[in-house]
Amino acid sequence: MTIKDARTPASTENSSKENSGNGEAGKSIGWHKAYVEGSRPDLRVPVRQVHLTNGQSVTLYDTSGPYTDPSTTTDVRRGLPPLRENWITARGDTEEYAGRPVRPEDDGIKHTSPRGGLRNLDAVFPGRPRQPRRGRTGQSVTQLAYARRGEITPEMEFVAIRENVDPEVVREEIAGGRAVLPANVNHPEIEPMIIGKRFLVKVNANIGNSAVTSSIEEEVEKMTWATRWGADTVMDLSTGRNIHTTREWVLRNSPVPIGTVPLYQALEKVDGKAEELTWEIYKDTVIEQAEQGVDYMTVHAGVRLPFVPLTANRKTGIVSRGGSIMAAWCLAHHKESFLYENFEELCEILAAYDVTYSLGDGLRPGSIADANDEAQFAELKTLGELNRIAKRFDVQTMIEGPGHVPMHKIKENIDLQQEICEEAPFYTLGPLTTDVAPAYDHITSGIGAAMIAWWGTAMLCYVTPKEHLGLPNRDDVKTGVITYKIAAHAADLAKGHPGAQEWDDALSDARFEFRWEDQFNLALDPDTAREFHDETLPAEPAKTAHFCSMCGPKFCSMKISQDIRREHGSTKSEIEAGMEQKSKEFAAAGNRVYLPIAD
Amino acid sequence: MTIKDARTPASTENSSKENSGNGEAGKSIGWHKAYVEGSRPDLRVPVRQVHLTNGQSVTLYDTSGPYTDPSTTTDVRRGLPPLRENWITARGDTEEYAGRPVRPEDDGIKHTSPRGGLRNLDAVFPGRPRQPRRGRTGQSVTQLAYARRGEITPEMEFVAIRENVDPEVVREEIAGGRAVLPANVNHPEIEPMIIGKRFLVKVNANIGNSAVTSSIEEEVEKMTWATRWGADTVMDLSTGRNIHTTREWVLRNSPVPIGTVPLYQALEKVDGKAEELTWEIYKDTVIEQAEQGVDYMTVHAGVRLPFVPLTANRKTGIVSRGGSIMAAWCLAHHKESFLYENFEELCEILAAYDVTYSLGDGLRPGSIADANDEAQFAELKTLGELNRIAKRFDVQTMIEGPGHVPMHKIKENIDLQQEICEEAPFYTLGPLTTDVAPAYDHITSGIGAAMIAWWGTAMLCYVTPKEHLGLPNRDDVKTGVITYKIAAHAADLAKGHPGAQEWDDALSDARFEFRWEDQFNLALDPDTAREFHDETLPAEPAKTAHFCSMCGPKFCSMKISQDIRREHGSTKSEIEAGMEQKSKEFAAAGNRVYLPIAD
Repeated sequence: MTIKDARTPASTENSSKENSGNGEAGKSIGWHKAYVEGSRPDLRVPVRQVHLTNGQSVTLYDTSGPYTDPSTTTDVRRGLPPLRENWITARGDTEEYAGRPVRPEDDGIKHTSPRGGLRNLDAVFPGRPRQPRRGRTGQSVTQLAYARRGEITPEMEFVAIRENVDPEVVREEIAGGRAVLPANVNHPEIEPMIIGKRFLVKVNANIGNSAVTSSIEEEVEKMTWATRWGADTVMDLSTGRNIHTTREWVLRNSPVPIGTVPLYQALEKVDGKAEELTWEIYKDTVIEQAEQGVDYMTVHAGVRLPFVPLTANRKTGIVSRGGSIMAAWCLAHHKESFLYENFEELCEILAAYDVTYSLGDGLRPGSIADANDEAQFAELKTLGELNRIAKRFDVQTMIEGPGHVPMHKIKENIDLQQEICEEAPFYTLGPLTTDVAPAYDHITSGIGAAMIAWWGTAMLCYVTPKEHLGLPNRDDVKTGVITYKIAAHAADLAKGHPGAQEWDDALSDARFEFRWEDQFNLALDPDTAREFHDETLPAEPAKTAHFCSMCGPKFCSMKISQDIRREHGSTKSEIEAGMEQKSKEFAAAGNRVYLPIAD
Repeated sequence: MTIKDARTPASTENSSKENSGNGEAGKSIGWHKAYVEGSRPDLRVPVRQVHLTNGQSVTLYDTSGPYTDPSTTTDVRRGLPPLRENWITARGDTEEYAGRPVRPEDDGIKHTSPRGGLRNLDAVFPGRPRQPRRGRTGQSVTQLAYARRGEITPEMEFVAIRENVDPEVVREEIAGGRAVLPANVNHPEIEPMIIGKRFLVKVNANIGNSAVTSSIEEEVEKMTWATRWGADTVMDLSTGRNIHTTREWVLRNSPVPIGTVPLYQALEKVDGKAEELTWEIYKDTVIEQAEQGVDYMTVHAGVRLPFVPLTANRKTGIVSRGGSIMAAWCLAHHKESFLYENFEELCEILAAYDVTYSLGDGLRPGSIADANDEAQFAELKTLGELNRIAKRFDVQTMIEGPGHVPMHKIKENIDLQQEICEEAPFYTLGPLTTDVAPAYDHITSGIGAAMIAWWGTAMLCYVTPKEHLGLPNRDDVKTGVITYKIAAHAADLAKGHPGAQEWDDALSDARFEFRWEDQFNLALDPDTAREFHDETLPAEPAKTAHFCSMCGPKFCSMKISQDIRREHGSTKSEIEAGMEQKSKEFAAAGNRVYLPIAD
């Protein structure tokens, strides 16, 4: 959407050609990073300012962080500046403490490993030695707690400017549990953002190395790459070795909230044997990650023992990793889930760091055949119950959703979720609207994502073309993010989000007026738009041509439309008057201006 | 969808590895072309038979024509065998005649050109000299006329087998004007197909050279390429030189119905000067194309003089080429459209060849801002009126639809169209749900396409990634077709089309059971699915591995689900019984089977 705040964004000094971020200098002429200042000088909201050739400019939401600001020097080994640090300390309700010692097994290194244990965070991340922070004496230091007390935090003001709404709206939505502002006190680097149906639809991108492939550097690079194209949050789903260290690097360099699934790391600590998991190991892992600064955590506490048999007749069983791990644990011990049983204690921990719950849908359908079944909705009901408990502890909470769902069964998902979970933000994976197109599941799911977001989903978890087949590479991450930004923006339009259509209008104006450069610069992906245009008409004059290669010069409908306006006027009454005049001339000319050449 | 006809499809002799069509031998092991025979030996409906590693097989709809049948030799210079010839002649209601002489200007060659005129079709297409055919003494020889008389033609039986429905259903839908079976008597090469909301959602792919680029060979190749990936019809939108010859080659080699916009060629004949168009030139062009065998024609007869001023305040004016040409003509002469004025005569011509109308939406919106406006709906009302006239002449008719429409305004389009046009098939371009993503308009429109098809659109006109930017190449055509096959199939599922879900179920079964080869072979695009999988896990053993690179071996949810079933049973009651047993054992073991490693 466009930001129409009365305050003019202050440009950075270097608003030059080179300013396209991530080292692809010169490619994105016509836009630069700018900031809208809030009520205090340390509250500067980043925007993407697109300068058009007609002298106008369009201000767009920007998720790319300091990386696209040439006046800022970023160093991956030092991390980003701790934007929120003063805000957090000024509140005076948190304290630094020694923190949990980092152990070899945090990085998947066995006890018997000859390599010694790592003593502190300095060892794994050289950039900025610091101690973790938490709420004093178990205080809830969450944005929800502040909102309920009527406080508008700097974080809330930040998102209000970003979303072009009144800060009080932000506070109300958070206080009512209808929106979350994920912001761990140990992640001061983030530029605050909000997830809720009253706001712009958000997109999450998953990254993460796995046991099979990928490295730490790659994951940090994937994170900055994903946010450059518009990812609003990033989930680090790493498994295997170096899981702790990877996360530390990602967190220290991330301008967006980071989510995780602590169960994956906990499982690594017991060598992948689900039945050996314990509440103690899990809890320790949650504290480990909370101290690092993880902003939201997927917790599969809704996979309860009695629900497991409900999946027996499914076509594709349990397809959530977390869900299947918990189901295996429940069955192995014939016991109720330790996550469900210890949920209140977990709430206390999350509240002390302001970690937001993302209550996982471990029993989501993995195929069209399994959509909206008993298992899925039994779990959803439990998530509603857990949501109420979390709110008692002032823990911000969102609810995860499916999965594979045919179009006609999508609306039931969001309607039920909103009812059962008292309008807590819905965070859905797709849904995929058919199973038959592996290698194109960004599209099968982009369809479902746009629809469910229109109907109220607050954040969409992206799906890449590699879904079901392999690990996404850099191109896949970009394709996934762009596809989901399309779904999100299509939903913003359909919801009538204020300002959303101005972006479309600016691009359509540019298109109608053959301002090709503006059309590229306003595009969700300027690079590819320009590249596709140049493939057929590479020459520079084609950038100002009043046609394109699709129809050629003689057939351009836009050109004909323009000619009509030029000759006959540009309003209805002018054209009607022009038509009358023309009619007279025409009659005077004998009503024929041509000789037919056919017989 | 899967075809569940009791008749077992007869395999072609050569159902070998090599049988993947279009020269990419060996890449698509596991499927081959087969035929389901109807009530007569010359009625053989092609299907794609996928053989699974578990011994089962799945039968899928197939649009690829004889090109994927190794027992058939195709020769692009001879054209395809005239499958329908006997059916057409046996009806005895058509006659061959000398036909209109082919003139240089048909190929965009000026009168003054030193090159002489071409005398007959032989000269432009060496493959099969023939005379055109038309209804005797102006008789209506349309499938609509036969259906209304209660006749089930071989064409109707063919599509009934293809769609897995009773032939009487096909006849009824055509007779009621709710479906069309485009089949020009001069295009005997096609494998009949049907377009109507009771049937599978169809996809059209546009091809066509333009004044700027592309050659005849490329267009024929694009056509076979598009049908290979599932295009149900192809529109030849060529402009510029060799327009007649290109079309002849495309028609003679096409197994699917071909559509055109005769106005484009008519405009070429007057050197691109819209005001010099006449009814005579247009009519002559329609006859020229009808004699060649064009199965359906877009006619922009709804762009009436009084509607042109309604577009004056639009953001993007008139974006349909045909619409803007007609608007320019109307304004230049201040006269009512010659297409509107001569519509009844046009009906007589179309009825004599069984050319189907595709009543064009020349005033469709070209931007989100212009969606569902007065101009658009004024034209739609006129299309309703023209639809009624066409039906009087027994001309099969479908109605074209937008365009650029935000999600919340899509349903109004299909609902109004169905009401105004008495349920005539709707044939929509997208709609694009946002304007901000040039280079990704296959996706912005795929979202809208899936939704509008769910709500009743019968055929979707594809959009490629190059839309608004340039001419699609081979890859773009494939991406466009696959995206739209996804939209169409998602809609078939949502509509509960009988058999549609069996395809998804077969693929999901393969996925759950780690039958990777089956998963690839059942995919909409087996090649890319396989390629993506192999990118991360290239080795052959990975094709039978019980995991993939996404989660690695330890975390595979599908594997865990399978393990659960193996240990605890595969029905709800077995699992519950197993759970109880497990519980006893567990208690006997002291309720602890592990030692926590965390403190």
